[in-house]
Amino acid sequence: MQVARVIGTVTSSFKHDSLVGAKLLLVQPLLADGEGFDGDPQVAIDTVSAGIHDRVVITSDGRLMRDVLNSKRTPARWSTIALVD
Amino acid sequence: MQVARVIGTVTSSFKHDSLVGAKLLLVQPLLADGEGFDGDPQVAIDTVSAGIHDRVVITSDGRLMRDVLNSKRTPARWSTIALVD
Amino acid sequence: MQVARVIGTVTSSFKHDSLVGAKLLLVQPLLADGEGFDGDPQVAIDTVSAGIHDRVVITSDGRLMRDVLNSKRTPARWSTIALVD
Amino acid sequence: MQVARVIGTVTSSFKHDSLVGAKLLLVQPLLADGEGFDGDPQVAIDTVSAGIHDRVVITSDGRLMRDVLNSKRTPARWSTIALVD
Amino acid sequence: MQVARVIGTVTSSFKHDSLVGAKLLLVQPLLADGEGFDGDPQVAIDTVSAGIHDRVVITSDGRLMRDVLNSKRTPARWSTIALVD
Repeated sequence: MQVARVIGTVTSSFKHDSLVGAKLLLVQPLLADGEGFDGDPQVAIDTVSAGIHDRVVITSDGRLMRDVLNSKRTPARWSTIALVD
Repeated sequence: MQVARVIGTVTSSFKHDSLVGAKLLLVQPLLADGEGFDGDPQVAIDTVSAGIHDRVVITSDGRLMRDVLNSKRTPARWSTIALVD
Repeated sequence: MQVARVIGTVTSSFKHDSLVGAKLLLVQPLLADGEGFDGDPQVAIDTVSAGIHDRVVITSDGRLMRDVLNSKRTPARWSTIALVD
Repeated sequence: MQVARVIGTVTSSFKHDSLVGAKLLLVQPLLADGEGFDGDPQVAIDTVSAGIHDRVVITSDGRLMRDVLNSKRTPARWSTIALVD
Repeated sequence: MQVARVIGTVTSSFKHDSLVGAKLLLVQPLLADGEGFDGDPQVAIDTVSAGIHDRVVITSDGRLMRDVLNSKRTPARWSTIALVD
């Protein structure tokens, strides 16, 4: 799990059925100073109604996704699990 | 999950049976600016009919692969799950 | 599993139900010298009552989390498993 | 999954029982140019009779390993799944 | 799986029950030259009686850990699986 900042959203008209209606966030994991960053951003399904510039905790566990998307077969893995105060 | 650009395809005459007929994309995960990149490209099975230069969302979940390749025993893990608009 | 130093905590008022009451540590994996570090910190659930500056061993196994948080559906993955002497 | 070049083999007289008879390759994941590389090489079980300098596709899925090594308990994870033409 | 050099051990008086009696190695994954290294060391459970400076093959598979530690609930993931000749 990592603290990441929401830097954008990803829109797609052609995607896996289980993702229809899901909001895809582009999030950038943050370094120890809580501001700088390094490396690749991740795409995460929004579960906490996060907006641009919000800081969130993200996880790679697929279990939550299968609940949220109501699909046993979703290939989605990364999602938000907490909005940082 | 990451946003990546399709930079090529991988052709193989000798491969795991479950991959016969599958299209293997070489994709490069993108940095926050949506253009730059850093680090190793991934090989992903195409599920969205992506072409060179297209941007896609990729996932490491093996579940989708077992459905798409119709093989409970496929060792394939990475695939596309969305074509970015 | 990695040796990491606790560098802070993460507070969130809006999070997955299974995380209510859990202490979220911000931990920085350490390099071979046991002091320097490189790359992204991780968020890990505390299971060893670690404090700031403590060194801990962290793991990405979800099994412990399901026990500690008493939730079969928690998406939490990273946790401490040992406090380094 | 990644495209990697075979750069050597690993020999071990003392190893997990399930690895007896298996060929362990040392492979280096390749960058986008198909030649350069960055970061740590991986150890992968050979399933495609790859030789030094060959390019292969590697995967971290443990399922193939359990089949190839005929062992439900093998801890092996990375293997080749295709030989690049 | 990676080739890594044993650079130390980790001692902990307060840890998950399943780790009591286990030897925790601090290992540094090696670059292609078999000597240089880059990035974070890992903590791995010893299963091959490795000593300082030995080279080992490590894996992230949790299955071996559950056997070796005789615990279905151990959160341990990384272990040695072979001692390099």
